[in-house]
Amino acid sequence: MTTDDGTVAGIGEFGLIRAVTENRRQPPSTLLGPGDDAALVASPDGRVVATTDMLVQGVHFRLDWSTPAQVGRKAVAVNLTDVAAMGAVPTGVLVGLGCPGETPTEVVTGLVDGMWAEAERAGAGLAGGDMVRADQIVVSITALGDLRGRTPVTRAGARRGDVVAVHGRLGWSAAGLAVLGRGFRSPVNVVNAHRFPEPDYTAGPAAAGAGATAMIDVSDGLLADLGHVARASGVGIDVRTDLLDMPRRLVEVGSALGADPLHWVLTGGEDHALAATFPSSGGLPEGWRRIGMVTANENAVTVNGEPYREAPGWEHWR
Amino acid sequence: MTTDDGTVAGIGEFGLIRAVTENRRQPPSTLLGPGDDAALVASPDGRVVATTDMLVQGVHFRLDWSTPAQVGRKAVAVNLTDVAAMGAVPTGVLVGLGCPGETPTEVVTGLVDGMWAEAERAGAGLAGGDMVRADQIVVSITALGDLRGRTPVTRAGARRGDVVAVHGRLGWSAAGLAVLGRGFRSPVNVVNAHRFPEPDYTAGPAAAGAGATAMIDVSDGLLADLGHVARASGVGIDVRTDLLDMPRRLVEVGSALGADPLHWVLTGGEDHALAATFPSSGGLPEGWRRIGMVTANENAVTVNGEPYREAPGWEHWR
Repeated sequence: MTTDDGTVAGIGEFGLIRAVTENRRQPPSTLLGPGDDAALVASPDGRVVATTDMLVQGVHFRLDWSTPAQVGRKAVAVNLTDVAAMGAVPTGVLVGLGCPGETPTEVVTGLVDGMWAEAERAGAGLAGGDMVRADQIVVSITALGDLRGRTPVTRAGARRGDVVAVHGRLGWSAAGLAVLGRGFRSPVNVVNAHRFPEPDYTAGPAAAGAGATAMIDVSDGLLADLGHVARASGVGIDVRTDLLDMPRRLVEVGSALGADPLHWVLTGGEDHALAATFPSSGGLPEGWRRIGMVTANENAVTVNGEPYREAPGWEHWR
Repeated sequence: MTTDDGTVAGIGEFGLIRAVTENRRQPPSTLLGPGDDAALVASPDGRVVATTDMLVQGVHFRLDWSTPAQVGRKAVAVNLTDVAAMGAVPTGVLVGLGCPGETPTEVVTGLVDGMWAEAERAGAGLAGGDMVRADQIVVSITALGDLRGRTPVTRAGARRGDVVAVHGRLGWSAAGLAVLGRGFRSPVNVVNAHRFPEPDYTAGPAAAGAGATAMIDVSDGLLADLGHVARASGVGIDVRTDLLDMPRRLVEVGSALGADPLHWVLTGGEDHALAATFPSSGGLPEGWRRIGMVTANENAVTVNGEPYREAPGWEHWR
């Protein structure tokens, strides 16, 4: 036994679990929360949407750039947007957390506070978790969701002639990362876009309800993720730059850093917008903006009809 | 781009994902497997049992003591026994895997091969996952299960007078760990008990069907885990050593190492036996053995009516 010196080793595993789970409010979908061998989460549809993402300190986040609570929010958001991208409503979140013994307890409680906050924003519960010793901080999140009787929207259903549309911001996180990488901490709305996305979790289910034929969470970058849709669907996708939002803020930051803001919009990851394809005959749900169309140009993503010359997105270990 | 030099960095994230997911057979419960934003797993009960555990190289496993496939099997087994301990039938597994770029590809494919093998043994699918760069190998598993209409068996339902019973082996993993820690590699059945458990995933649902009042996966050690049941239920539990199996093999190994085999049986973790309490009026399901009874001695676990003097189990960072 050691005494509580403000570190994870001092408070110990069971004390830490108490600190991050006691006196929390769960939504009705959390039928059994933390504290037993497993959680129980409502899945009234009879099928459960499930996804997992791991975030590693120094690879996916830096605690000198983001607060622990911002990292916690982001870790949950990147998973819940995957649930929403299937057309499902978030129901529950499970958390795996590894860290060294000398980690300050408040770093861990901050991380988990952020997770609770983002889960609550989405209407989901923090249903369970595991905390272990590791050499660096590793956060592994699993998110669950319910389709409410809808057909899941995969990457594979896009058809020639469909409209390509997005919901949410593009390029902001990449711009924020560029700002942080140069040692700046402002403009704060750009930097915060990198620290944590603020997805609208209703956009995915709304797209599914409106008949979206394919959908994806834009995590790797717009062109890279549209490439996943094109390959899975056996179609081409052409993005029209005149249809893309080009916010004045990104133009200003690009100009200050000598960077091309359009490149951020086309290839920047981590904004966790949604991209989807819709039948050209119908309208788009609220908040969705047309950015291009599905073509017969098999498996290829083009910009204004031409190949895009830069690396299209992020791949681990490359 | 780099070339494939037999490492994870060489094959790259997308090549690695292909290597561990292509040409795999999924059970019918995997409605959508890897390759989209999220998986879809059948949960016909309308509620899904979900649990997560993280395993870290050097903390939970050593690749000089176990093969990657053995580590993968164990990582899945420790989660699926948590599902079974609620009385549920395993349905799906999600995998988060972090490792350095210089990790040999065959270590990762070995890990995931072992995960597939254990999931298949349990009738569950490897429904999804995420692979990322990290400084050490970290495996995070989430397991899902279906209650098939049964009431979940928590830790909180034990009542005074109930019979305490276990299913599966106790002390073997601790004995195997002791053998490995002394630099030996035999007896192989003892060492293998530490490398991976071989749980019977039907024992938990059978106990739930037989009216078990409380149940727990024995991961931290028998006395520690019965302590969790005692506290959650507000009861005491007395274990009778004359009712415990004391296999000749453990006695021999204890004698060779100068260790007390009873201590392994009472406090050794990671065998992933199940412990449960049953009404004294009924019989026990097949394979379950009585080891003690529930007493009024609030929150206390005793051995032959007396407190047990050694540390009762494992706690992270302590």
